[in-house]
Parts: sequence; structure tokens; C-alpha cells
Amino acid sequence: MPASINRQILLKSRPEGAPSRDNFALVETPVPTPGEGEVLMRTLFLSLDPYMRGRMSAAKSYAKPAELGQPMVGGTVGEIVASRHPQYREGDIVLGYGGWQEYALSNGRGLRKLDPAAAPVSTALGVLGMPGMTAYVGLLEIGQPRPGETVVVAAASGAVGSVVGQIAKIKGCRAVGIAGGTAKCRFVVEELGFDACIDHHAPDLDRHLEIACPKGIDVYFENVGGAVQRAVWPLLNDFARVPVCGVIAQYNATGPSPGPDTATILRKRLLVRGFIVWDFAAKEADFLRDVGAWVRDGRVKYREDIVDGLEKAPEAFLGLLQGKNFGKMLVRVAR
Amino acid sequence: MPASINRQILLKSRPEGAPSRDNFALVETPVPTPGEGEVLMRTLFLSLDPYMRGRMSAAKSYAKPAELGQPMVGGTVGEIVASRHPQYREGDIVLGYGGWQEYALSNGRGLRKLDPAAAPVSTALGVLGMPGMTAYVGLLEIGQPRPGETVVVAAASGAVGSVVGQIAKIKGCRAVGIAGGTAKCRFVVEELGFDACIDHHAPDLDRHLEIACPKGIDVYFENVGGAVQRAVWPLLNDFARVPVCGVIAQYNATGPSPGPDTATILRKRLLVRGFIVWDFAAKEADFLRDVGAWVRDGRVKYREDIVDGLEKAPEAFLGLLQGKNFGKMLVRVAR
Repeated sequence: MPASINRQILLKSRPEGAPSRDNFALVETPVPTPGEGEVLMRTLFLSLDPYMRGRMSAAKSYAKPAELGQPMVGGTVGEIVASRHPQYREGDIVLGYGGWQEYALSNGRGLRKLDPAAAPVSTALGVLGMPGMTAYVGLLEIGQPRPGETVVVAAASGAVGSVVGQIAKIKGCRAVGIAGGTAKCRFVVEELGFDACIDHHAPDLDRHLEIACPKGIDVYFENVGGAVQRAVWPLLNDFARVPVCGVIAQYNATGPSPGPDTATILRKRLLVRGFIVWDFAAKEADFLRDVGAWVRDGRVKYREDIVDGLEKAPEAFLGLLQGKNFGKMLVRVAR
Repeated sequence: MPASINRQILLKSRPEGAPSRDNFALVETPVPTPGEGEVLMRTLFLSLDPYMRGRMSAAKSYAKPAELGQPMVGGTVGEIVASRHPQYREGDIVLGYGGWQEYALSNGRGLRKLDPAAAPVSTALGVLGMPGMTAYVGLLEIGQPRPGETVVVAAASGAVGSVVGQIAKIKGCRAVGIAGGTAKCRFVVEELGFDACIDHHAPDLDRHLEIACPKGIDVYFENVGGAVQRAVWPLLNDFARVPVCGVIAQYNATGPSPGPDTATILRKRLLVRGFIVWDFAAKEADFLRDVGAWVRDGRVKYREDIVDGLEKAPEAFLGLLQGKNFGKMLVRVAR
């Protein structure tokens, strides 16, 4: 029996530059009742992801902005607590897009039933969900790594970067990570099996990266931009591939950040390609089969950074944008 | 019987910034004698191409720089005037890489015999040679234009751009050129059949380009960089493709020129890829078959800008870099 109060975090205002807690508002509303063909989900986990920064802005993007006065959007794992939909029953655990709230309605579109016996259900938001698939399709479809090549990825202990490097290793590559702080770097090398990991808080990023990549860089999985991009660029080998999945260092910029020099793109015959995971929606079955097996075999490991309580979401999200999380950032909204 | 004097234009010094006549030296040397397995070619046509600017510099590139004190490198059509090579006879007309000189030796490697009855032999340096193939592979292999899409190319009356737009039309696209001056723009539309051509000497390039591309830009064949690139970038549609074959506006820059904004590459899911024609060497037979047929049928037209006499090469080359040529730039070295 659901509670009667639905706590929600609304997008109150759009940020100029870095977002702050003032952009969000916690409100209490009645728990809605599903209509014919609908289900009511009780949120168990809310995923926090860098792309959400883009949704906070009204600027044109690949997806519509979140609406002011509405709950922030976001992927969720929830339990069906009331159903008037023929394919779902109370007690089903589903992956959905319920947003920053304790309860959400759905007409069933975009929901996927999860099997709690197959894997912890939170993984559907991380290693076996959108971030893992982003790593999988970006690296394999665009990066096309070949054995012996060097793959570099920043945010290497995070939800996407950790999977990029581990798949690179499975494909016979040298995997070099970049992460913030000693603890993350140790984790990336010792637990995840990267060949090297560079602390971007330490001075001399350029030199350390050069040392870690003695044969140059063949694939740079771009998820941060900024200083890391500037350090990587001179080390790219001819015919290097640069899948661009994020530029978290630039999300708060109010003007354009210059990118790669066109003359270098020509001289080195580089391929630079932006993508979002759903551009490769047709690869979802391959992803679930491959990465599912690798996770079961222990060849792909993952780490979650979980905070408890919906009210913690804004602070956790702001921390994520600053790299304060250590692993896939999740909010446990209910147990 | 060859003359005894071989006039050559040597690379005397490397330019800092824009090259000048002082970087070249005209010298007279004895005509060499072919050794066993060699041929002596008398140059009929020397091709002048923007890539030669890169060869003048010592900076790392996809090809070795031209050597100081040696004849400038370049593609040539020549007549065999002496042969000690089993596959060539006196009187054969060959495509080769004889450089900026009246006579050149070759061991036969890289030579291709031409049939003067099939097409004017000068076309082997233009529409049916490296520039034409650059257009063909860059547009079709990287640009992948689909019917109804809009293709934009600068230097639209030149050796590469003219072929890009004409193939775009054959593939059912809207072709929009950019060229310098009214005469070139008229030629591009009236003779080559582009849908529109914008004079980049006129003010308001951005606005004219926007008007000429009411449905945005799906393929931007990048051969100039600079102001044209900046005008094109905001008009690119989601999933646009940008084959990068040259950045002539930036060749004389002494520092890097910022390129496309990474955040835009991501947001629009752009593909930006540098290439040189020989990355697609395997497509040469397809190119000769397709474009050969289109030239014969009159579906692909070409224009040559020919100066007479080897001594004119430096001035013609410097003019080429400034867009003074009108059509494929050639030097007629001998008749």
C-alpha cells in the first residue's frame, strides 16, 4: 500500500554557469493514482548522470529540456505498487524514467522488467544500463580499438569511464585512465585492471600522460573536454578515433570552448564523432549479452556511490559535476 | 632527342607564414640519363595543388617535407623520351610525380600510362586524378550524402570543390558552393549546376549561407577552414558529416587555429574526419570508372587554369594559395 505523500524535486530555475541547490525545490504532492493502462512505480534508485546538466538548460540539445516546475528527469529503478497495465503486476521491478520523485506514473512505454536474481537491480542504471552501454557503443562502434592500441579515458572510476577501460583491456588494448585523486587512481589500476591511471589533481598532467602512453594514443574516449582534452590532443596517433560522449568540464561554460584544431584533424587523419547512446539503440541486445557475461565472469567490475534519501539528490548531483563521487552515482530513494 | 638543359625549380628556403618567390630558385642542370630500369620523362603538365604548402614546411605531416635544395615535389604528366624500363617506350604518356622540373627520372614505381584518346592527358592531374579522387572519396566515403540533403563546399570552382558539388548533384543533393568573386560563382551555378554559390568576398557570408541552406547543412566538405568554417558550423544539422581534406585558409598560420567546439560535436552528433586521398587508395578503380563515365557523359564538367612555362610555377602557386586561380591550376611545361 503506497504512502499518500509523494516527495518530488522540481527544477525551480535554470542555472547560468554552475548550477546550485537554489535551482531545485523539494515539494510534497499527493501520490497519483494510475489510470487505465498505467502503473504506479515506487522509486528504489534514482540515477544521477552528467547529461542532466544539459536538461537543466533551455538551450537546444539532443533532448528536450526538463520543464520548470516539474520534477527533474532521470532514470530510475522502481517497484510497481499499483498496476492497471496488462504487462505489469504489483511487485515487479522495472527500469524506467521516473525522475526525481518517490512515486511516478508510467503508461508502460520505455519500461523494462528487471530480474533481481540475475544482477543487483541498481546495475540497470550503471554498468548494465545507459552508462555501461554508452561505454560499450562509443568504444566499440566509434573507437574501434585494435589489440595493442592505447585507449585513454577520463573520469576513469566513473560509471562510463570504468567500463570503457575494462572493455579496452578485454579487447587487448593498453588502457590508461585519468581520475581525480590517489584513491580513485589506485582503484582504477588495482581493481579495474587499467595499465595506468593519472591523477589530474597532480601537476604536470601533460607529462604524466605522455609517460603513460609511450606509443601515443589511438582512442580517446572524450567525456570531459577541457584540460584533459588539451593534454591528450598532442599525443593522438595518426588515424586515432575520438568518440565524444561528454564534455563535463565544459557544461557550465557560458561561451563556446574551442575544440580540436582542424589542421591537426587533417594532418593526423583523425575521426571525431559525437554520439549519444540511443544513436546505437540497435546494439542494446549485444550490449546486455556481452557486458552481462563480463560482469558475471568478474571481467568487468563496477563500483557504486550511493546516497540515501531523495532529498540528497541535488547535493549529490552538484558533487557529481565536480567529480566528488567515486563510482556510479545513485540515490537510494526507498529500500 | 631531349635537350641538354633541365630547368628545375628548387625549394630554396622554408616559409614562415605566407610563402614568397624567395622560397624558390630556378636553376639549370644537365638532363640526366636513365640507368638500367629507369625512364626519363619530359614534363608536359605540372600540377599545382594546395597540399604543396605543407611540403614546404618541415613540420611533421602525413608526408615527408620537400627537401631543401631539391626540386619541389609535384604530380606531372610527362612523355617518356628515353627508356631502359621494360614496360615503357619512348612516346608513352605517363602520370607520375616528376616535380617542378622539365625532365625527371623514374624507376617506374607509381607511374601510370595514360591513353590520350580516352581523355585529355591533363585531366589525369585534375578531374580524373588526385583532386577528383579526393572529392570522390571524401564526399562518398566520409560524407555519405543522401538524396535531399544539403552539401556545402568551398573553393567550389576549384579542382576538388567543383567535383564535390557535381557528384552531390548526381546523388540527388542540394549543392551549395562558396567561391571568390562573381565570375566564379556564376560559373559554379551556370556551368557546374550547383543550386547556389556564395561569394565570400561579399559581406554577410553567414546570412547568405543561411539563406542558401534553408534546411541546414548535412555535409560540409572542409577544404578551407577559417571564416567559411565559422559560417558553416552553426548551420550544421544533427548527424552532419564533415570530411576534412584541407584548411587552405590556415596553411600560413604560425599557431593553431581553433576548430569546432567539442560541445557542438556532441550535441549535434557530428562526424568530423580528416583524410588524404591515399587513405582510400583501394577506391581508385571505382573512382576512375564512375567519374570517367560522368566526364564522358558531360555530367561532371571541369575547368583548367593553365599557365605556360615552368618559370611561372612559383607565381601561379602563390596565386593558388590566395584563390587567384579559376579552375584546376596547371603549368604547361612543354607542348
